[in-house]
Amino acid sequence: MDRRSFLRTSALGGSAAAAASLATPALAQGTRVLTMVTSWPRGFAVLDDAASYFENAVNTLSGGDLIIEKKAPGELVGALEVFDAVSSGQADLYHSADYYFLGQHPGYAYFTAVPFGATAQELTNWYLHGGGQDLHNELGEIFNLRSFLAGNSGSQSGGWFRSEINSAEDLNGLKFRMPGLGGKVLGKLGASVQNIPGGELYQALSSGALDGLEWVGPFADERAGFQEVAKVYYTAGFHEPGSGLAVGMNLDVYNSLTPTQQAIIDYASQATTHYNLSETLANNGAALARLQAQGVKTLQFSDDVWDAFGSASKEVMDENMDDALFQKIRASFETSLASSSSWIQKSDGFYVDQRTRVLGNG
Amino acid sequence: MDRRSFLRTSALGGSAAAAASLATPALAQGTRVLTMVTSWPRGFAVLDDAASYFENAVNTLSGGDLIIEKKAPGELVGALEVFDAVSSGQADLYHSADYYFLGQHPGYAYFTAVPFGATAQELTNWYLHGGGQDLHNELGEIFNLRSFLAGNSGSQSGGWFRSEINSAEDLNGLKFRMPGLGGKVLGKLGASVQNIPGGELYQALSSGALDGLEWVGPFADERAGFQEVAKVYYTAGFHEPGSGLAVGMNLDVYNSLTPTQQAIIDYASQATTHYNLSETLANNGAALARLQAQGVKTLQFSDDVWDAFGSASKEVMDENMDDALFQKIRASFETSLASSSSWIQKSDGFYVDQRTRVLGNG
Repeated sequence: MDRRSFLRTSALGGSAAAAASLATPALAQGTRVLTMVTSWPRGFAVLDDAASYFENAVNTLSGGDLIIEKKAPGELVGALEVFDAVSSGQADLYHSADYYFLGQHPGYAYFTAVPFGATAQELTNWYLHGGGQDLHNELGEIFNLRSFLAGNSGSQSGGWFRSEINSAEDLNGLKFRMPGLGGKVLGKLGASVQNIPGGELYQALSSGALDGLEWVGPFADERAGFQEVAKVYYTAGFHEPGSGLAVGMNLDVYNSLTPTQQAIIDYASQATTHYNLSETLANNGAALARLQAQGVKTLQFSDDVWDAFGSASKEVMDENMDDALFQKIRASFETSLASSSSWIQKSDGFYVDQRTRVLGNG
Repeated sequence: MDRRSFLRTSALGGSAAAAASLATPALAQGTRVLTMVTSWPRGFAVLDDAASYFENAVNTLSGGDLIIEKKAPGELVGALEVFDAVSSGQADLYHSADYYFLGQHPGYAYFTAVPFGATAQELTNWYLHGGGQDLHNELGEIFNLRSFLAGNSGSQSGGWFRSEINSAEDLNGLKFRMPGLGGKVLGKLGASVQNIPGGELYQALSSGALDGLEWVGPFADERAGFQEVAKVYYTAGFHEPGSGLAVGMNLDVYNSLTPTQQAIIDYASQATTHYNLSETLANNGAALARLQAQGVKTLQFSDDVWDAFGSASKEVMDENMDDALFQKIRASFETSLASSSSWIQKSDGFYVDQRTRVLGNG
C-alpha cells in the first residue's frame, strides 16, 4: 500500500470513527459528523470566533445533515499538529493559519500573509479572482487536502514590547514571537524568534521567556491580556497586512461529501471571512481606546525601522525561490497584488485622503 | 381589510402564483420558487453579476428545495419599480441598490452609500457589527420587507465627462446622471441631475440627453461602453465610496420560509458581498488600462472641487434631519464610521503608505 492509499483509507476510517463516537440520539439518522481540530483555545477573540462562525454556518446551512464538531488544542491534537492530523486522516478538517505550516511547504505563507504583502481585501481579490484558490488546492494535493480561506484578522499590529524600538538595532537579541516569513525577517535583524501557540503566549511574556510578541490586533490582544505585562504597542506592522485563516479538509472526506455539502463548505468559508474581518475591524478602535486607558503607549515604527524591515523581507522572500511551486505562487500573488493595489490607491485611497482633508479629522 | 393585511394576502398569493407558473417537470415536488426582480439588465458587469451570484448561491445551498428565478427590468416590472413590486407582494424579492428608493424613505441612502460616507469595508463593519442590519429591517417594517446587503461595487468612480472639470463652476448647468444623495449634492452645485436606469445610460449619453454620468467603476463602465462616447474619466468620487447592493424580500414570504431557508438567504447574501466586491476590485485595474488604451484620459478632481463637494454634501445631509428614523440611522452610521476609520487609518492606511514608500512604487 503506497502512502497515498494509506492516507485515503485512514482518512475515511477516521471520519467514520469520529461519527460513531459522537453520534447521540439527538442527531438524526443520516447525519454526517466531521471532527474539526483548531489551533485556537476556546474563546480566543477573532481566531476562535472565525472557527465557531464557520462551524455554526455549516451546521445551520446543512439543516442538520452535516455537523462539524470543533476541538480546541489538546482535545485531540496540539495547536500546531492540526495539519498533519488532517493530512493523515486522524481528523476530518482543521481551522488554523496556514503559515504555521511552512515546514510542510513554504508556499503556505501566501495563504495567511507575507511581509509587505496583501491587505485583507487584496488577498481576497487574488484568492477568488486571481488564481489563489487554485494554487491553494495545488499545494493541498501534495498533502491530501482541500483548502478554503475562512476568516481574516485584518492588518496585524506591530506588536507588544517592554520598551520602545527606536532603531532596527533595538531588535537585535530580542526574544520575540512571530510566526511565518515575518519571523524569519526579524531573525535577519538579530531577533531570537520563536513560534509559540496563542494559548501559551501570555505565560511566556509574563515569565520573561519572551521580551515581546505580536498576536493579532487590539480586539484580540486585549482579550489575551498582554496589556497586563507589556506597555508599548505598535499599531501597524510589516509582517501580516491581512492574515487569512484557513480550513483544510482531508481530500477524501471532501470528495465523499454530496455536491450540496461541498457547496455549503465553500459558501460558509466566504461568509466567515466576510463576517470575521468586519467583526475585527469594527471592534479594534474601541479596544485600542481601552488599552490606552490601561496605560498602554501606542506608537508607529519610524521610517528607518520600516526600511530595515523592507531589506530583510526581500532577502527572506528570495531565499525560497529554488522551489518551483513557491515561485509559481509568488508570481501569481505579486501580479494580482500590483493590479489590485494600483486601482485601490486611485479610488479608495484617494477618497479616504480627501475625506480626511475635507472633513478635517482622521 | 387594512393595508398590512392586504399586503400579506397578496404577497403569499403572488408567491404561489409565481411558483405555479414556473413549475416544470424538472423541479422536484416541494420545491419553492421565488420570483426576484432586479434593476439590472442581464449581463451588466458587477450589478447583474451580484444578482446572479446570489441567485446561484441560494439555488445551490438549498439542494433544490428553494429556487430563485431572476427577472431583468421589463420582464415583470421596470428597473426602479422593484421596491414597490416586492412591498405589495407582486414579486417575492428584489436585487437592487436601496438609494433608488429615497422617495420611499431617505434613510435608504445609508444602505447603498452617502456622500463622504463609508468605504465598502466600513459599511460592512457598521452593517454586521454596528447595528446597521437592524436599522435596515426597522426601515423594512414600514414597507413589509426583510433586507440584506448582497453585493458591493467598491468605491465608485467620479464619472464620465466630455471635457475636464477644472472648478466647481464647470458643474453648473451640466446634465448629469447621479442617483442618491450624491445627485442632490451636484444639484446644489447647479447641475441638472437625473436618475436614469443603467440600461438607458449609453443611449442618453450618445444622444446628448446627458452631458456626463457616473455609473460604477472601470470594470462595469467598460462593459457598458461609455468610453465610446466620452473621453474624460475621474477615478475617485465623493458620492459613493463603497456602494452596497441590497436584497429586499417581502416580509410575509420571508416569514413563510423554513429556518434553514432563512439562513440560506442570510449566508448567501454575505458570500455575495464578499465575492462581488473582490471581483470588482480585482478587475478594475486591468479595465482601467484598457480604457486608457482606447484614448480615455483619467484624472482626479482638484482639492477645490472636493471642497465644493464637501460643503454641498453637508447641506444635503442636514436637510433630512426632520425625520426621526433618518436621524437615528445617521447617528448609528456616523458613530460606527468614526471608530472604524480611525483604526483602519492607524493599521491598513499606515501600512499601505509605508509599503508604497519602502517598495518605491504605487
